Amino acid sequence: MRSASQNAELALLLEVCGTPKPGNVDRSRDLDDLLFEHFLAGAVGSQRGLRMAESGEPIGRSFERSVEGMAEQGGGNTQFGALLLLVALVKASDDGVSRSAVESVVEDTTVADAKGFYRAFEHVDVFVSEPPDELEALDVRRGDDAIPALETRGLTLLDVMDRSVPGDDVAREWVTGFKRSFDAANRLAEATGPIADRAATVFLSVLADRPDTLVAGRHGDSVATEVTERAAVLVESGSVEANRDAVESFSDELVSRGVNPGTTADLTAAGLFIALENELIEL
Amino acid sequence: MRSASQNAELALLLEVCGTPKPGNVDRSRDLDDLLFEHFLAGAVGSQRGLRMAESGEPIGRSFERSVEGMAEQGGGNTQFGALLLLVALVKASDDGVSRSAVESVVEDTTVADAKGFYRAFEHVDVFVSEPPDELEALDVRRGDDAIPALETRGLTLLDVMDRSVPGDDVAREWVTGFKRSFDAANRLAEATGPIADRAATVFLSVLADRPDTLVAGRHGDSVATEVTERAAVLVESGSVEANRDAVESFSDELVSRGVNPGTTADLTAAGLFIALENELIEL
Repeated sequence: MRSASQNAELALLLEVCGTPKPGNVDRSRDLDDLLFEHFLAGAVGSQRGLRMAESGEPIGRSFERSVEGMAEQGGGNTQFGALLLLVALVKASDDGVSRSAVESVVEDTTVADAKGFYRAFEHVDVFVSEPPDELEALDVRRGDDAIPALETRGLTLLDVMDRSVPGDDVAREWVTGFKRSFDAANRLAEATGPIADRAATVFLSVLADRPDTLVAGRHGDSVATEVTERAAVLVESGSVEANRDAVESFSDELVSRGVNPGTTADLTAAGLFIALENELIEL
Repeated sequence: MRSASQNAELALLLEVCGTPKPGNVDRSRDLDDLLFEHFLAGAVGSQRGLRMAESGEPIGRSFERSVEGMAEQGGGNTQFGALLLLVALVKASDDGVSRSAVESVVEDTTVADAKGFYRAFEHVDVFVSEPPDELEALDVRRGDDAIPALETRGLTLLDVMDRSVPGDDVAREWVTGFKRSFDAANRLAEATGPIADRAATVFLSVLADRPDTLVAGRHGDSVATEVTERAAVLVESGSVEANRDAVESFSDELVSRGVNPGTTADLTAAGLFIALENELIEL
């Protein structure tokens, strides 16, 4: 039987294999400087950190190690957000994973875990939005330099996620019991066909639910809302099955505009992990 | 830095991502019952056995464990032959791998290693050709039941490979210092573009060198020879770059005939590992 850390790595691989996944690298699309193979190497590289989470190591150190390994490829940040979800889910797994188990894991995080999270930013350039003034000292782009402020304020990793929620739907999973991740897992189970195809279908449905926060951060709320509304039209009209060309052309357009719904990909990867770990899907 | 076992897993992933890879599953092609995602799961599953080889465990047990993990997916045998090459190469690696190092590894194999090899056949159905009468007691399809004969004759894993050479070009690597694997690595280094594209180019060139022994075993020598001659025409005319349609249509034809050059894929995976491990290619 695959271990939780293996299922997490497999989830990263399956996520990038879904196609068409509008705006993102997928089985059929490379971007100019970010290739499919960078995601393969990122997934393989994240192994050790994922195994640390599995074996009971603290979540902050496990996350930092997984990001360090993920970043050992030439494409830059491939799976930072996905790993922030997966490390918690792997740590919560015990022959399966529940919302209550992962809620306990995130509630038990410490200031040391928050430090690990900040240190992870030393390993890779991650896009983040400008923080509000009162959080400037805790700007993740400060990396290590933000650690004294963390200590002074006694913030755990869950506290940091709580403060990141407006504008970061990965952080939002941490404070809502991973609701959208578990919803994505159920949708994967309900879909049919190869898992990679289901991943593409569920990616579009997740994109249709809420504006992607990475798109909002990079391109503004109105672009993110427009992308979500158009995804919703495609989902409602059953285009994934019935009009694949429409999804492909939406994807081409997003790529040409440089719009990459990365947060949606992160949530899809988390859903794939839950579906594998809870045997909602078979592979 | 990626470890040798991580490079081996990444090599398996990159191999299946090359496209078009005539006759085989690749980034753009699933077969009816054998999907791209089965290869992803096979690669992830092989991790533990590859790590055993890396940490100095005997090659037979490492191979058996890697095959057991590889087989934990619904597609059946995906990477048995590739693992037989990779386990030896990983064991021989020490910040890089040389032909002399892997020659030493295979020369040091024991009867116990041969037993591990036979036990691996208990985990998965592998296509093998009918052995000659004098080797009937050592037919790998006997699995565990062949072990008394191994012991009586005192055969090491290298001895077993030596006896498998006619008709098995994976075994042939073991007795020729992995010559074609190292040649493939050099070709990967000379090619240009994304690694997955190079893998497809090198796959075709390996297929053009010698008839694929899996194709010969399943479809006869004349089919294997025909396939190799046609691959050679495509390579000599530079079709991978200049006439991709010709390679695609060759691929479609092989798939429709059920011709899958699996040994060529195994050699390509070994070449990818060597190229990654010796930093002949960057990813």
